[in-house]
Amino acid sequence: MGVIGAGVVGGGVVRALLERGESLVERAGVGLRLARVADIDQGVAERLRIDPSLVTTDAESLIADPEIDIVVELIGGEQPAKDLTLRAFSEGKHVVTANKLLIAKHGFELCRAAEEHGVELRFEASVCGGIPILKALREGLAANRIERVLGIVNGTANYILTQMTRANKSYKEALKAAQKNGFAEADPTLDVEGHDSAHKLRIIASLAFSTDVDLEDIYVEGVTGITREDVEYASELGYVIKLLAIARRVEDGIDLRVHPTLIPQDFVLADVNNEYNAVYVEGDVVGTTLYYGKGAGRFPTTSAILADLVDVAKDIQFGCVGRMKPFVWGPTVAVRDMKDLESHYYLRFTTVDRPGVLGEICSVLGDNNISIASVIQKAVADDETKPVPIVLMTHMCSEGDIHRALKKIDDAKSVRAKTCLIRVEEHG
Amino acid sequence: MGVIGAGVVGGGVVRALLERGESLVERAGVGLRLARVADIDQGVAERLRIDPSLVTTDAESLIADPEIDIVVELIGGEQPAKDLTLRAFSEGKHVVTANKLLIAKHGFELCRAAEEHGVELRFEASVCGGIPILKALREGLAANRIERVLGIVNGTANYILTQMTRANKSYKEALKAAQKNGFAEADPTLDVEGHDSAHKLRIIASLAFSTDVDLEDIYVEGVTGITREDVEYASELGYVIKLLAIARRVEDGIDLRVHPTLIPQDFVLADVNNEYNAVYVEGDVVGTTLYYGKGAGRFPTTSAILADLVDVAKDIQFGCVGRMKPFVWGPTVAVRDMKDLESHYYLRFTTVDRPGVLGEICSVLGDNNISIASVIQKAVADDETKPVPIVLMTHMCSEGDIHRALKKIDDAKSVRAKTCLIRVEEHG
Repeated sequence: MGVIGAGVVGGGVVRALLERGESLVERAGVGLRLARVADIDQGVAERLRIDPSLVTTDAESLIADPEIDIVVELIGGEQPAKDLTLRAFSEGKHVVTANKLLIAKHGFELCRAAEEHGVELRFEASVCGGIPILKALREGLAANRIERVLGIVNGTANYILTQMTRANKSYKEALKAAQKNGFAEADPTLDVEGHDSAHKLRIIASLAFSTDVDLEDIYVEGVTGITREDVEYASELGYVIKLLAIARRVEDGIDLRVHPTLIPQDFVLADVNNEYNAVYVEGDVVGTTLYYGKGAGRFPTTSAILADLVDVAKDIQFGCVGRMKPFVWGPTVAVRDMKDLESHYYLRFTTVDRPGVLGEICSVLGDNNISIASVIQKAVADDETKPVPIVLMTHMCSEGDIHRALKKIDDAKSVRAKTCLIRVEEHG
Repeated sequence: MGVIGAGVVGGGVVRALLERGESLVERAGVGLRLARVADIDQGVAERLRIDPSLVTTDAESLIADPEIDIVVELIGGEQPAKDLTLRAFSEGKHVVTANKLLIAKHGFELCRAAEEHGVELRFEASVCGGIPILKALREGLAANRIERVLGIVNGTANYILTQMTRANKSYKEALKAAQKNGFAEADPTLDVEGHDSAHKLRIIASLAFSTDVDLEDIYVEGVTGITREDVEYASELGYVIKLLAIARRVEDGIDLRVHPTLIPQDFVLADVNNEYNAVYVEGDVVGTTLYYGKGAGRFPTTSAILADLVDVAKDIQFGCVGRMKPFVWGPTVAVRDMKDLESHYYLRFTTVDRPGVLGEICSVLGDNNISIASVIQKAVADDETKPVPIVLMTHMCSEGDIHRALKKIDDAKSVRAKTCLIRVEEHG
């Protein structure tokens, strides 16, 4: 087999193959021999302490090498990863990848191409690093109609929210701590804005619902607007705020969304902290299950890639290539429009400090079919010119109604800032 | 395929096969046709609302039926389950079972027999019901050298301990609640004494360490001796008490033990409550992972059996029977004697209420190389003839030293009852 891209993860895979080839034979009954490594960096042999004759800067020659039957694609990004993957298929090579962007955007197309060429495509490492969540959805829970998936699938966002909750940090301080500790990139946009979570949700949902879903259909909202104030109110109400990737079967389709979410403090996902990931899955037979671990990083990702390599090698060894399809195409499932979402909501209003404001707000909410479950309004005595917060939790209502109500409320004279809305996810 | 034993789980499997055969074809690409059900109960057709012509009281005729290629063994217990399984193998039939006793006692022998006959044996349902933990250990974590496994693998014991911790119940009250709610048998001995957990640990450890371990080598201690007092002291010290099944790689072998254990309140296993199970796995590449769900009951167990059936049916369909060995035989690994265990300990002494007792205890502990991490001793003012508790947490020390020290302490005049010892498991 050959590895294209010997960066952090690729380097880990190369070292692991060289160091634990033997133990894989013993445990998994297959041998994995590293035949070639391709990387644009000329110094890769020295950096990884490997035989320079194994190394090339030419990925295409690696793919064409007749000694190589499995290609591990670890360069990331859409291109040239996609073309190299298709090229590998056309050369009759199986591909294992950790490339979530590639699979989220082109997974079904690549899966079809692999099938046409009679080769395999595996991407366990693309979602939640070392947690074997795709295998669980595809095989372990094969008997189930999946009803709901809630995922904490981005370690950067989870680290930031955990630090805001547990260490009382502001968003900025928490982001800095994440960057300092290696849990956030210098440019964290993809992670904190929720797009990375959406990529993973697209892969998870395709497996969970046996259908091709469109990345564009996923509602995405990141954590950059979360304030320590909201974290504290949530805590007072018995909740924590997590960035969740949510897929849920509803009457006429599925909900697909990524957004900050209040979850009850005694919900099992509430204790998934810092850089850890977890995916909570409800199936109609199995009930509730949860899968937890490190979602990124050199070693967890290496663990997933090696597991895929073992699976593919076994299929080659036993002559059963194609035994497990990476995606299954069932009937198309409609993704529900966000305005039709039914949820509980956390609302924080910023208003002038004068009697009657709460009444005005409640009356607009009531006019829009929104009923209130609880309220926090604290006396702020010192300076009545300063705006004050009013925090409300609603009963179940529709996103469309909420937005209609908030538009009206935010236009009122007594309201001094855009209302903060955070959706709530309760126990199953 | 045919099902032997149509009780709670068997009935669930039969109904699921009849109701979701179609969806399995769509999702998993295989059809599972129920050809026959064997049960000693003549009323089974009526009870399960199935065609009476499918039902027989003769398990051997089901096994011999040429229409059947997979036998699902759900009668439980050692015999006749073992003989029927061997009989199925010799007829060239694959076997899927939920029988943990059978696999814990005869797993390797049965695995060898299946291999000799060129058929498969699967038992995901035998450990933690619907949680695909065996698949995770065998496939998802294939690249890893497993370092430590901590399992909450018995729902009855976990329900009782949770009720003692969260609802302030005594052991007796908690057991009654468990029985009332269907989480404990009328005779709960196997569950509360830890033997059921030991059976599961034997299967988990065999997979985790690729070696045949002897059930007799597992140290087993149940939860019947846990008092509310200990639950409360644990909480005061920042811990909760869980019945853990522990397998850990140590310098010269492995530790295998089932016993009540103090774990830190912020450890992810501390939030696994009531009837839920979870298995925490540390691998040398992946780091920490955790698998959580319902460990027993009709539907979770059915989910695991159907997943196994899909796997076997796929192997038949793709002509790759034997692709995944249920157990792997690596080098034999020595199980460390309990006296050589190194652990932290919680000790609760029952002593007379007079000055100097704590000093005496500490001096005996010190003489036996045991150093103390923290102490709780509360003034008990009202009646100095009443015995008082002294609670200690030790630093790391050896089980042999602890027992030597306790023998001496419990013989002392000032000590009024056998000292309570609970082992402690810290974060990884």
